Formats: sequence, C-alpha cells, structure tokens
Amino acid sequence: MEVVLSINAGSSSVKISVYKAEPSSTTPQQLAEATVEGLTAPPAKLKYSRGDQKIKGKELENINSQEDAFKYILSHLQKDDGLPELSKTEDIHFTCHRVVHGGDYPRAQIIDKETYHHIEELSDLAPLHNAPALSIVRAVSEILPHAKNVAYFDSSFHATIPKHICTYPIDQEVAEKNRLRKYGFHGISYQFITDAVASHLNKPAEKLNIIALHLGSGASACCIKAGRSHDTSMGLTPLAGLPGATRSGSIDPSLMFHFTHSAGSISHSASSHMHITQAEEILNKKSGWKALTGTTDFGEISASEKDSHKLAFDIFVDRILNYVGPYFTKLNGKVDALVFAGGIGEKGAKLRQEVVNGVECLGFKLDAKKNEGPADEVVTDVSDEGAKFKTLICQTDEQLQMAKGILADRGRFVGKKG
Amino acid sequence: MEVVLSINAGSSSVKISVYKAEPSSTTPQQLAEATVEGLTAPPAKLKYSRGDQKIKGKELENINSQEDAFKYILSHLQKDDGLPELSKTEDIHFTCHRVVHGGDYPRAQIIDKETYHHIEELSDLAPLHNAPALSIVRAVSEILPHAKNVAYFDSSFHATIPKHICTYPIDQEVAEKNRLRKYGFHGISYQFITDAVASHLNKPAEKLNIIALHLGSGASACCIKAGRSHDTSMGLTPLAGLPGATRSGSIDPSLMFHFTHSAGSISHSASSHMHITQAEEILNKKSGWKALTGTTDFGEISASEKDSHKLAFDIFVDRILNYVGPYFTKLNGKVDALVFAGGIGEKGAKLRQEVVNGVECLGFKLDAKKNEGPADEVVTDVSDEGAKFKTLICQTDEQLQMAKGILADRGRFVGKKG
Repeated sequence: MEVVLSINAGSSSVKISVYKAEPSSTTPQQLAEATVEGLTAPPAKLKYSRGDQKIKGKELENINSQEDAFKYILSHLQKDDGLPELSKTEDIHFTCHRVVHGGDYPRAQIIDKETYHHIEELSDLAPLHNAPALSIVRAVSEILPHAKNVAYFDSSFHATIPKHICTYPIDQEVAEKNRLRKYGFHGISYQFITDAVASHLNKPAEKLNIIALHLGSGASACCIKAGRSHDTSMGLTPLAGLPGATRSGSIDPSLMFHFTHSAGSISHSASSHMHITQAEEILNKKSGWKALTGTTDFGEISASEKDSHKLAFDIFVDRILNYVGPYFTKLNGKVDALVFAGGIGEKGAKLRQEVVNGVECLGFKLDAKKNEGPADEVVTDVSDEGAKFKTLICQTDEQLQMAKGILADRGRFVGKKG
Repeated sequence: MEVVLSINAGSSSVKISVYKAEPSSTTPQQLAEATVEGLTAPPAKLKYSRGDQKIKGKELENINSQEDAFKYILSHLQKDDGLPELSKTEDIHFTCHRVVHGGDYPRAQIIDKETYHHIEELSDLAPLHNAPALSIVRAVSEILPHAKNVAYFDSSFHATIPKHICTYPIDQEVAEKNRLRKYGFHGISYQFITDAVASHLNKPAEKLNIIALHLGSGASACCIKAGRSHDTSMGLTPLAGLPGATRSGSIDPSLMFHFTHSAGSISHSASSHMHITQAEEILNKKSGWKALTGTTDFGEISASEKDSHKLAFDIFVDRILNYVGPYFTKLNGKVDALVFAGGIGEKGAKLRQEVVNGVECLGFKLDAKKNEGPADEVVTDVSDEGAKFKTLICQTDEQLQMAKGILADRGRFVGKKG
C-alpha cells in the first residue's frame, strides 16, 4: 500500500490531504485532511478531519510560516492513532506539491536538485506565488528523505494555448530572454474540472468544450476546447485577468506609474527568497475587493447592501462577463457547459445568477431553485430545463487531482531520484 | 460666413481641415484639407487638397514639431489664392483641437487660461498623448488671437460608462486623489460613428446599440448602448485594450517589472512638458506590431506570408475578438450592427473577414464580394443577406465631427473669452 501527501500551500495557509492506494490502483482513497489557516493573521488555526473525527478552529502557537505549518501538520498526522498508515516517516511514498509557476514545464516533475534549482529560477516570474511551495519542498527533503517529491504546476495545463494567444506584442528578443508570455494558472483545478465534467456528461474529455470559471480569493477563467486549454485570463503571473480578494486583475499597464512614483522600487516585504517591486506588492496584496470594501470575504460582500460592497460585487460580475463572451465565440458557440468552481463559484448563488443573467442572450439560463440548493455532488447541474447550454457547479479538488496524477503516472516517477 | 479650422495632432502628424458655414447653419462645408506627416521620420511631407487641386508627398525642410507643422499649414492656407476665405487671420472664427485626455470633462470646452491650465494638469495622466495638441493650442493663441479655441476630448464620449465598469479595484483613496479610472478614448470618432450609423439605419441615435471598432495605428473597441458609451477597451490611458502599431495594449500589469529593472525611471525622451517613465515609453512606442514585424504598416502585415507578420495579424484578430463577445452580451444580444472604422477598419478586408468569421456563431456574416469592394460611402453595409446582424464600415471623420460640434454648440462658445 502506498501513501501520498498532497500539499497545497497558499499565501496564508497550508492544506494537506492524505491518501492511500493499492500498489497498482489509480484511485486514491482519502484518509485525512488537515489545513492550517491564518498564517498572515496569527494565531494560525487548525482544521482537521479523519473519518468522523473533526477538529475546527484550534488555535496554534508559534506557527508563522508555511514551513511551520507543514511541520505541525506532519507531526499531527503521525501522532494520530487512527492513522497507523503514517506512523513511520518511511511510510510516505509520495509528496505532491502544488507549485504556481512552472514556466515551460508541460507536466509534473519529480523534484531533484536540478529541477529544484530550475523551479527556483523561474520563480523570479512569480515570487509571491511560488515562495510558499518552495519553502515546503525544502522542508520535505529534510524531514522525509524517503519520499518522492513531485511538483504539479498550475501553469502546465495551459501549455496548449496557441502562440497567437500567449504571445504579448512586445519586443520579442526581450520576451524570449526574460520568458515573457501568457502562462496561465489554476491548471490543476482546470484538469480536475475537465475530467469531472466529461465524466458527468458521459463524454470523452478530448471532445469536451467548456467555459470554466475558477472563482476564489484568486479567480480566473479558462476556455477549454477539446479538453485542452485554448485561452485563460491569467497571464505572465496570476495578476492578470479577474480581480481577486487582494488582487487588482487587469488594469491599464501604465496605471502603477500614476499610482506611486516608486512603483519599480523593491518592496519592503521582499526577502532573500523573494524580490518583488512595490507595484507588484500593491497590485497583488493591497487591491481587489479588500481595497474596495475592507473585507476579503466575498460572502459578506455578496450579502451586503452597502454601496462599496455592491460596487465590488458588480465589478466582479462585469469582469467575469468580459471572458464568457469571447470564450463562447472561441468555441464557435459549441459549448458543452459553463462551469462554476472554486469557493465563490461553489457557494456564490447570487454571483452565479448575475453572471448567467448576463449571458442569457447566448443561451444560458439557471433554474433558480437548483441554483439556491445544495451542490453536494462533484458536479451539479443547475441549468434551467429550457436552456440551450448547460450551467454546472464543480467541486474542484486540487489535492485529489495531484494524487490521481501521481498514481496514474507512477511509472514515470518510481526509480528516479528526487 | 464663419470659418472653422479642425486640428488633429498626432504623435508624428498634424491634420487640419478647413470648413465654412453660414452664420446660423449647422452644416460645415469643407474648403480644404492639409496634412503634414512624418514628423518623427524627417523630412516631413505635405498632403494637401482643395477642390481639384492636390499636392502629395511634398518634402518640407525644417519642419520637426507639431508646432512647426501647424505654422507651415496655416501659412500655406493663407497663401492659397483659391482660399480667399482665409486671407486674413481674423477670418478664422473657430479652431477646434482634438485633445486625447480630457479627464472628467463630459463635453468640449472653450480654452481660456483656466481650462488650458486644467488640461495641462490632467495631461500628466497621458503626457505622450496630450502634448502634441497642447503645443498647437499655445501656438494658436499667439498667432490667431481672434479665434476661439475649443478643445474636443477623446474621453468625453465615455463619461457615460457606469461606475462598476470604469472603477479599478485598487485603493480607492489613491484612485480618487490621482484620478485613476477607466476614461476611454477615440470618443470624437465614436460620436461620429454613432450619428452616421443611426442616420444610415434611419433610427434615432438614442436607440442605437452597436459594437464599434476604431482600428488604426491606435485601436479601440466601444460598446455603444442606446447611443451612449457603455464600455470601451482603452483605460486610464490609451495604452490599455487592443494593441496598435507601436503599443502593446493590455498585458499582465506586472510584466514591465520583468522586462526591465528601470521600468519606473524617467524616460530619456521626457521633457519639461512631458514626464514619462521608461515603461510607458516602451509600451506605447516600442511595442505593438512594429515590435513583432519591424513595420507599422498593417496593410503590409496583412498581405505578407512571413511567420512574424502572420503572428502579428492573428494576435490583432484574437485581441479584437476579446471585446466583440462581451460587448454583444452587454447589449443583451440586441445589436444593430458591428461597425468597422479607422484606417485598418476601412481598408482591412482580410482583417474584417477574420474578425467576422470569429463571431459567426453570434449571427454575423460578411458578403465576401461587398467586403472586398470599395467602401466609398460614409456608411457601407457589407453584411451577408442571411446574416442575423449587420456588419458596417464607417468612414469616420474626427475633424468634421468637431466642426459640426462647434456649429451646433455655437451659442455656448460665442461671447466667451478664449
């Protein structure tokens, strides 16, 4: 029996799912799931579930970084008597890491010294986003020397975007030298969504055409044509495209030079592992609906009658609609479904209603009752019966997607160092 | 009889149209048109037409700035025996100036000391774009003290864009203080297009819904709902949105910080009248299809079989399609026409074909023969007979639009200083 840890490190949280699988099986069975949240707003808190056992909101002392959180969770898992599968560190065969920016890597990579170095190098493009995962990769190689470390990149799914869509019309010498192009992110999630929706519709994934919206505190849209990414809203970094909890999304590229005279200076929060400009810090961390409303909680924004909250809500709907129309035409109107995923995509009934109202003229329509009801399946159909095109909600699961990937791709990883 | 000069100063050219009108008429009659081109690639050249008299490609010495060009054209007009209407400087009653960035001005303004100062101030937002017009405004007040100087702003037409569309999700205090929002440009042209298409369709302008594309060396898209701007692709400055001859259009807002370490430094081409960063210089002047292909001539790009040229062409089509879909849905599918205008919009039959092919699933279709034929009317219908929605070509005329505006609005300007 093999044990897989799927590790998903964000800017203020670490989530780890534990799976087991029979040696030749490609179906991971979840054993437990642990999340440490609030790293940037201490005290950090633990959420844990294993079967019927649940812990929620347990305050943790001295847990201030992703590395701390990883070590804490690992020790918590190993001490849990209900998890005999993990009692020895040698029992963990694989650790998967969600890494945001994977440059040109078109698929997962086992992390040996060379790939680690390469990932670190290309993290210059998205230091804010890759740093959390890399700090955990370093910790894993130290604490779990027997485990194979595999990096899953949020950008890999988008390696199929055609050149005329991923090329920026800028000096091509500099673009090539500095690797400046549209990469796209949330790809682990989009792969999960593609497989889940194809299975729900009983269609081979390679014939699936969908407009997928991964809407969370980071949000993006993806045009999936014949099961592959054809276009997406994020760009060189996750900053482009839709706004998020603290992220501006696309704005006039000259705006930052009118926002502050020190746009290009190095940010105070930069470190030896992370060189970022003030502009990038402001646009990634101090913008979005937090800047408009004071809260990062989209549920609160959605429910409020305050002008600032309504404005933030309407801005988000407007920007989402800027992607649904063109992706519809890029699929030549042959669309299997519009799919909502991510925290807000799953829970935001009002947001879904407004977005779908905005594209009713294309043939989308919600069933109001289904839209308000629980979406407790992996894929839930919320379309009106008379709608020309389906609208679905998908409970995406990046950790499960990575674990599935490991099992399906075992042959490529076993026997290799890393 | 009144004489109006309509002045359109671009980054490397000055175009002046001369009109006369009976004292109470609102219909300007064109007397002559003069253009000095190539200011940034000397020698500058004169193009002139008055009735049957035509001059083309006449090389000019020592004409290096917009001010030089204006003075040369004025003297050329006054020396032309066929133009007795302009023999004395007092004969010129109105000079209209196309000013790109008008901040919050919702309509044309007579230029007195106060408005001049204000326009100069808000030009900080778009120094590259406002500087040419302002240098001519200064020259006019000196040389033509009797004329009323009126500024027409490219941004005014977009004053109707709803707040949730023109607000950027950034720190709202800074946004307010530094006046950071989507303004939009090409508005003089969009007003012309709105009036011309409404008249062509025999529909009141206030009931007209169109998707308008002004495609020239600067390019933008506009969603016109009930005759008013509802959304547009340009933003705080003309940089956002579609790429152009030397302009990148929208890119990841963090890209410039990965392009050069001195993105925020002041550009070498800055002057006392113009403070711009290197990033803005690069993205406005050294990008676009010039950076991809080496030429700014879209006709050449369109006809070429070279990979670089085909890539530039495909990028432009792709970016245009990113606006047609959402504007279609923002009009709830109630669209009177898709309208092509501007140099490329008028002449680019292949580009029109590709764009319309890309939105065929929405109900647009070209008649291939009409699309290839001459578009010599103000508005030419090139739709296929079976198409659900019309596709039109409009010969937009910013100078004429300003002259019409002056005559219609005479009461507001006469009697005022300026």
